[in-house]
Order: sequence, then structure tokens, then C-alpha cells
Amino acid sequence: MKLKDLGEFGLIDRIARQVHKAPSVVLGIGDDAAALAPTAETLTLITSDMLLDGVHFDLNFTDAKSLGRKSLSVNLSDLAAMGATPRQFLLGIALPKDFSTELMDGFMAGVLEQAERFGVTLVGGDTCSSRSGLVVSITALGEQRPERVVKRSGASVGELVCVTGTVGDAAAGLELLRQGVREGFLVSRQLDPEPRIAVGVALADNGLATAMIDVSDGVVADLGHICELSGVGARLQLGALPFSDEYRTFCADDPYALGLSGGEDYELLFCIKPKHRDAVADLLAGFGVKFSVIGEVVKGEGIELVTPDGAPYQVVQKGFDHFQ
Amino acid sequence: MKLKDLGEFGLIDRIARQVHKAPSVVLGIGDDAAALAPTAETLTLITSDMLLDGVHFDLNFTDAKSLGRKSLSVNLSDLAAMGATPRQFLLGIALPKDFSTELMDGFMAGVLEQAERFGVTLVGGDTCSSRSGLVVSITALGEQRPERVVKRSGASVGELVCVTGTVGDAAAGLELLRQGVREGFLVSRQLDPEPRIAVGVALADNGLATAMIDVSDGVVADLGHICELSGVGARLQLGALPFSDEYRTFCADDPYALGLSGGEDYELLFCIKPKHRDAVADLLAGFGVKFSVIGEVVKGEGIELVTPDGAPYQVVQKGFDHFQ
Repeated sequence: MKLKDLGEFGLIDRIARQVHKAPSVVLGIGDDAAALAPTAETLTLITSDMLLDGVHFDLNFTDAKSLGRKSLSVNLSDLAAMGATPRQFLLGIALPKDFSTELMDGFMAGVLEQAERFGVTLVGGDTCSSRSGLVVSITALGEQRPERVVKRSGASVGELVCVTGTVGDAAAGLELLRQGVREGFLVSRQLDPEPRIAVGVALADNGLATAMIDVSDGVVADLGHICELSGVGARLQLGALPFSDEYRTFCADDPYALGLSGGEDYELLFCIKPKHRDAVADLLAGFGVKFSVIGEVVKGEGIELVTPDGAPYQVVQKGFDHFQ
Repeated sequence: MKLKDLGEFGLIDRIARQVHKAPSVVLGIGDDAAALAPTAETLTLITSDMLLDGVHFDLNFTDAKSLGRKSLSVNLSDLAAMGATPRQFLLGIALPKDFSTELMDGFMAGVLEQAERFGVTLVGGDTCSSRSGLVVSITALGEQRPERVVKRSGASVGELVCVTGTVGDAAAGLELLRQGVREGFLVSRQLDPEPRIAVGVALADNGLATAMIDVSDGVVADLGHICELSGVGARLQLGALPFSDEYRTFCADDPYALGLSGGEDYELLFCIKPKHRDAVADLLAGFGVKFSVIGEVVKGEGIELVTPDGAPYQVVQKGFDHFQ
């Protein structure tokens, strides 16, 4: 069946029927706007990301369900980077009239599966036709107490730069997809990244992260955002960068290039006081999440890269710029 | 200058510099998410709309500044239809790399001019490249006390169906644009509609509207949404439909067709108790906004159309469906 047979309101009904209610949602899908009841004494954290066919994804590379999961994941990851507990989201989808309802159902199954997993409720959005490919726009809302929100601007000289999981995998996975590979660990890291919600919230709740960002543009670019907004510099120990075995095999010649500039890992990059190193290690171990200290915050500006043998290292590409 | 010369972060800086801060915005543009402080004892109303080149607008028809204004207006109109005071918004824009910065500046000038006028603050969003045309995605947030939020589902039998302003103008304007006309009242109603923010909020604050929606899909389709969700029917007096002189001239043969099914007027369609008729008339007169009673809420379902001479009238097109 094609969308033109189902119709716009048929599609909305089909989606609305699959959505569970949540106590914070006074009014969900079906009115001019959704009505949400914020928890007392919390701030509302809100973020929005667009994903376009041919720019952010390729329907020849990804299955619809993974794309649905990833579309929500990248937004939830932004909330995690603030230390916020995700609560609700809005979904905008523009799609060609001849888009199959099977593909649409697969996409929605992925979105709603991820929503269920992280306890977030679809409360509204927009559906419309597209003359070109699929466009997805998600706005996600979360909550955190004002004193616990973790900004990019909170890093201080002498703190440790840390990262969860491994980096470079998603960029390597994209390279593999372009080479025709369609499965495996690196490919799944690109197509279906895991947002570090529980870790982000726990780091914030326990007052352990002074500054935080998710790795969407690459370690150097994203750490650069923290440095710029915090008015500090950073020294990165390249030998401490956490790489997966699969990544090391793929990037045997130079693991640093993609490890530093490859984005979309959606790991959390954050700064902590040195005295909290053990507490953070314990906390992340409790979540079964790998924890690495990869550098330190220093005076000045910019990021100094230190190789294991002390040789200088130059980053070729700093991160992704949509218009360059 | 082209966007590829300015770069993604250059564009974001350029936008961020033009934005004023508001007390409700704890953290605006520049972090992973914005942090907002909701007013105590209010609900957060939230709505999202996408606008795509070639679907919702045509850059050959509209100037960039009007498009910027309209992009925000259609979202604020949804908040007005809930009786909510608009507070903040997020802006997602996907645009071709060779898009001119002049066009972009014009668009942003329109968005921010409208934002300033209605006291809403840009707090975040997303910028990315598009392989096809411009895509705009706006999410707007507003506030209202729980007992004052006006839903689509509150209409009761015996109430009056009312509408602000005039209907059909925007659809007639679109027709004129297609015929090559580029200015005049009807065209400006299509390109730069006026969201009825103050009226929507006042109707809610004074407990006068029992159900409300904005006319985006056409009177019959939008009243149909109220009827369906309220479990009622409606009888519309076609002779009472408010038409502008310009519209009457344009649609001399049959003013009802576009008046009933033409969307995008962004007027408010709402129900009131008969005893409130004078109070509502006075309220709207105070805002300088035309007020018309166009029908009544009846038992049953569906919408009965009554012509001035009592002849039956059949609606040909019920409203806009994006996939049909």
C-alpha cells in the first residue's frame, strides 16, 4: 500500500493508535498543540534535529526500522549531554506520495521502539508530502533541576577530559557502507547508535560532570565547542583514545584520523575534577559503559594533540560542516 | 555570498547574534539543548510544523522575508488556537549549499521580526544542507493555565460556531499567484497571514471559547475536527460566512467553494455559549478583529450546509490531504 491510499489523516490515526499515554502528557496527538505538565522545580530541556535523505542517511544503506531508532536516538543524545531525563518528543515527517506504508510502518516501529525503551512519549508533530526524499524532524524535551543541568561552558583548567565507549566506529561504519558492506559492528554503530541516556543523567544527578557534549561532529570538533564556551584549551593524549578492536583492524594505518574527526558515535565527552575519577569510573562500570580519560583541560585555547611517542599530530579535517 | 562561504557555524553565529534573551530562557542557542523555565502552574503547549519548497511555498511566488514571517505565524497560530501565550521557538532549516546568504538573511529577518512582534524567543534548532530545496521546521512553545487551555473537544449541542476575520482569501490568493498576480490583499493573505494570538489568548483567559481550532485546512475540514472530537454535528449558514470584498469579486460565481474548503487563512474557528455572544463580540471589537457567528452545534455528526435560499449545498473538496 502507498501513502496516497492511506491519506494524511489515515497515517496520523495509524501513528496515534500506537502511542501510550504518560502522566506528564495532558493532551497528546490530535489537537492544534500538545499540552505538557512540567515537573515542579525542573527546567525544560529542548532540542531539535533534522535528518534528510541523501544528507544524513541513505535508504539504500539503512533499513527503515534502524533509521527510526537513530532519528530519535540523536535527539535523545543531545538531552543526555545536558544531563536531562527525556520525557516527550514531536515528530515531523515529509515524505513522497509513493512512499510505501510498509517502509513508513518500519520507520515508525523503530521510532516507537526506541521511545518505549527510553520512556519518552510521542505527543505531536506534522506529516506532509515531500517532492524529493524523506525528511525527518524531531524535537525532544527533557527535564533536569536547574543546578544539575550540565552545560558546555563549565570546564575548568586542571580537569580531566573523559569519553564513554569507543570513538571512530560510526565514521568507519559509514566508510564500510560506501564500500558495499551492509552489516557488522562498525556498520551497526553508524546505523543504530546507542544514546547514553542513563550515563548522562547519572553524571548530572551526582554532580560529577562539569561540562558535557555528545560526540556528533567528532572528538576534536566537539571538545573544541567545550573549550571555546569554557574559555579554556585542552591537551589530548591520542594513545588514550578508546578504539574498538573492529575499528583498530579497519584503521590499522592511522587510527587517529577518523577517531578524532569522525562524528556520529553519540558517545558522551565530558570533563570531571581529578578527585572524582574513581567515582566516575565506578558509576560508569555500574552501567556497563566503558570509561576513558583522554586528556586534560589546560590554560589558553585550542586543542593540543600528543601522540604516544611525543610526535606532533595534525588533524586534517576538524569535523563536519553542512555547507562546506 | 553563498552559504558554503559562510559555513554552518558562521550561519549559526550570524543568527545567534540577532536573538534577544528572555527571562524564561535560562540557556538559549549554543549548547546541546536549550533550557527553559516554565511559569509555575501553567501547562507547556507545544506544536511543530514543516514547510517545504515546492509543497508549502514557492520561492518564485514569495519574497524571503514574508516566508520567514509566515513560517513562524503558522506555528504561533496553532498555539493561539489552544489559547496559549507563545514564548519560545526552535528553528530547523535545511538548505542548498548554493543558497544565497541574502535570501537567508531575508528569511531570518522575517522570522525574527515576527518573533519580536509576538514576544517569542528563538532558543535553538538545527541547520543542515539539503539536496533539494529549502525545508523549514519550526517548533513553538507557549503557556496557559490548565483550566484555560481550549481544546478541539469541548463543543456542546446548542453552542454557536464563530470565526474571526474573513475566510477564503488565502486560497484565492494562491490561485491569483498561479495566474501570475504578485500583489494585492488576497495575495498578501496567502503569503503573510496574521496569526490571531491576542484574540486566542483573550478568548481562553476569559473562558469564552469552549472549543477552538485555526483555519488551516478550510472551514469544513477544521470544523469537522471539532465536531469529531466533541462528538457533535454542526449546521453552517453559508450566508453568514464572512468574505472580504476582494474575495467576493474574485469568486463572484461561487463564493462558497473556496470559502468552505480553502485553507491557510489562519483565522480562529471556535464555539461559544449563546449567552456569551455579546461579550465575545465586544472582546473582538476591542482587538479590531471582525467577528461572525456562522452556525450552531447540533446533535449527531457531520456538517450540514444551509444556503441563504434553503437549497442544499455539496462541498466538492473537503480540505487538503498531503498524500492525496
